[in-house]
Amino acid sequence: MSATGSTPDLSRCSLNTATVKHATLSEAVDAAASAGLGAVGLWRHQVQEHGAEKAARIVSDAGLRVSSLCRGGFLTAADEAGIAAALDDNKRAIEETAGVGTRELVFVVGGLPALSVPGQGPRPDAGPGDRDVAAARARVADRLAELAPFAAEHDVRIVLEALHPMFAADRAVISTLGQALDLAAPFAPETVGVVVDTYHVWWDPQLRSSIARAGAEGRIAGYQVCDWNLPLAADPLNSRGHVGDGYVDFPTISRWVAETGYTGDVETEIFNEEIWAADPRDTARTVGERYARHVLPHL
Amino acid sequence: MSATGSTPDLSRCSLNTATVKHATLSEAVDAAASAGLGAVGLWRHQVQEHGAEKAARIVSDAGLRVSSLCRGGFLTAADEAGIAAALDDNKRAIEETAGVGTRELVFVVGGLPALSVPGQGPRPDAGPGDRDVAAARARVADRLAELAPFAAEHDVRIVLEALHPMFAADRAVISTLGQALDLAAPFAPETVGVVVDTYHVWWDPQLRSSIARAGAEGRIAGYQVCDWNLPLAADPLNSRGHVGDGYVDFPTISRWVAETGYTGDVETEIFNEEIWAADPRDTARTVGERYARHVLPHL
Repeated sequence: MSATGSTPDLSRCSLNTATVKHATLSEAVDAAASAGLGAVGLWRHQVQEHGAEKAARIVSDAGLRVSSLCRGGFLTAADEAGIAAALDDNKRAIEETAGVGTRELVFVVGGLPALSVPGQGPRPDAGPGDRDVAAARARVADRLAELAPFAAEHDVRIVLEALHPMFAADRAVISTLGQALDLAAPFAPETVGVVVDTYHVWWDPQLRSSIARAGAEGRIAGYQVCDWNLPLAADPLNSRGHVGDGYVDFPTISRWVAETGYTGDVETEIFNEEIWAADPRDTARTVGERYARHVLPHL
Repeated sequence: MSATGSTPDLSRCSLNTATVKHATLSEAVDAAASAGLGAVGLWRHQVQEHGAEKAARIVSDAGLRVSSLCRGGFLTAADEAGIAAALDDNKRAIEETAGVGTRELVFVVGGLPALSVPGQGPRPDAGPGDRDVAAARARVADRLAELAPFAAEHDVRIVLEALHPMFAADRAVISTLGQALDLAAPFAPETVGVVVDTYHVWWDPQLRSSIARAGAEGRIAGYQVCDWNLPLAADPLNSRGHVGDGYVDFPTISRWVAETGYTGDVETEIFNEEIWAADPRDTARTVGERYARHVLPHL
């Protein structure tokens, strides 16, 4: 239920620090605290810069929680060296997650082996097998089986993020929430979960049933909100908008999430050049206002 | 089976005239015929310009068939005037289809009522209901029920096209082949079918089963091929590439289509500024070559 007084309850509203990309960790935390938010979502480079213990203290000293850590993943390599590097890097990410005081490690699982660099065309030597998206998805399943025991040992949850299908070639071969749940199915829900990110899944005809399934399975590890803006930015990765500026039906999707009994944080994660250029405190205040107007009444 | 000699069999290879957008109908037909293709896919403005009978003769005089007509649809209006206009326009499209000598009328069903203009942000006065994608999809179902008897009377098939989810807000709220099949389910397969367009559906984790289902239900009315190129064009509508230039796994998808027993045309439909600037005969020759290399061996 939403607060009915003049001061909305922003305790579940979290600022993912990518939304204020150019701020230092301290500046981002200050912005979130000044806006009255309850938590921040961190990125690995911040943990690596300060060390997990100090990064955790910067957050807790401001009276905030860490809602999640971004990000592990990139599991689709087909060659031995690539597989070993992915396992190694993700084990470090799991350790960083445990150290910084959250259980939730968001995974973006990676694109096709045909990829040259994200957002660009295929390698000139890419063959049909390098475009085999079903095979890439099978490798994700294999890597998860190798990483899940390590995550469980560290009491960390691998949180699979379905990315919008326009990123299937270059960023994530998990394209729907239902597919993320299928990949999570072999593992305990406290070890492999999913995040519902409105930007990536709002269009999905099966969204309602997939959210209900995720809730019933105990796998909703996070709810991320930002809007689908048009026109797409030159780099479509950065097309996201503040909640309420685009086409996403936040009342409906928030209600579906709430109906599962989800009581965790609601993270705002926006990649947008204009928003990155704004003052972090202004951005955090807008995040809180939009959450209060479009999301909170439906939770 | 593919031809094994030096001259590939291009009889099922069709040039959608949008691929040579700046050519007249006669020039497009000439280009397709000169490349040895078997058919062309037409657009309504060409039929309207020449009249259905003459447009049909331009095609048949060159020894070609009409594989489909683009396009009807845009069924998501919520107001009475918008609904009446959509029904009226689609009845004309059905008549044009019958007149020009194909049974297959491709439907792009339209986006959200919140839309201002395609590719742009929402109307300033758009409310939450205008962003309700489930309600927009329900209106598509209602309009199909009203149009299907008219299509059946004219022996025309309404061919539902799932568009890539990046077009869900502004062009088509049908985002997967499975969803298109669910919408087609109440109707006879000779009255409402689906088209498999690689650009729009290649990423779908359920693609194999949806293609098999479409085949089993007798609803595959067309197979359209073009590639998923990166980076996306400034107008992402025009990001498509020649078969083989991007990330789509044509051998696999073509095999899935062939396994259903589909023996119809394979249309190449590419929206791409660079390709539009090329000579139509060169473009048609490339279409035939790419079809012969990447698609035909797997049919």
